Amino acid sequence: MDPDSVAKAFVEHYYRTFDGNRPGLGGLYQDASMLTFEGDKIQGAAAIVGKLTSLPFQQCVHAVSTVDCQPSGPAGGMLVFVSGSLQLAGESHALKFSQMFHLMPTPQGSFYVLNDIFRLNYA
Amino acid sequence: MDPDSVAKAFVEHYYRTFDGNRPGLGGLYQDASMLTFEGDKIQGAAAIVGKLTSLPFQQCVHAVSTVDCQPSGPAGGMLVFVSGSLQLAGESHALKFSQMFHLMPTPQGSFYVLNDIFRLNYA
Repeated sequence: MDPDSVAKAFVEHYYRTFDGNRPGLGGLYQDASMLTFEGDKIQGAAAIVGKLTSLPFQQCVHAVSTVDCQPSGPAGGMLVFVSGSLQLAGESHALKFSQMFHLMPTPQGSFYVLNDIFRLNYA
Repeated sequence: MDPDSVAKAFVEHYYRTFDGNRPGLGGLYQDASMLTFEGDKIQGAAAIVGKLTSLPFQQCVHAVSTVDCQPSGPAGGMLVFVSGSLQLAGESHALKFSQMFHLMPTPQGSFYVLNDIFRLNYA
């Protein structure tokens, strides 16, 4: 697959897992992974899943608007930049967000998330 | 300087140069650098500066709202994620944007931009 297709497939998988089985996101992070969520820095797969599963909303649906990707350095990494909206259960308006992922290849031929930065786009 | 201070100093320098002396941005990119600007992919310092100096607006002022940064991999790189607004001369409303930079260290102890992805946040 070309990088754009890999990025799109990752993004679809990530948000489908987030919306349907949030604890399952743990498999996408490793101990060196870092998440910055609205300015809050968390390191390591376990702590990241702890953060994501304890956000103050349970049901949500992500809709992706744009996916940009670039190869990143000699180690085979990839940067993925997403814009989209997040619909929370019981809320009338969706929240716009931007999120970036730095994906690194695994020996198994897949990718894990080394860096993850999430921000809501305040109007 | 700690990474957050480095990131903030870079971001201030980048947008001050963008707003005051756009051709001067060329010194921040190298031949391997990539820019994705609103989905348009450009590679190399010269082509990137060509793109940035030929955008359909001349005078503008960036205002930064948030700067998040994370170290990125063993090579001493840094990921910087910015949200802010862009005021164009003669326009009444500022445009919200999100932008990420992947900075890599230079032998001189400074940084250059390896990856740069820019998106306006459409309401």
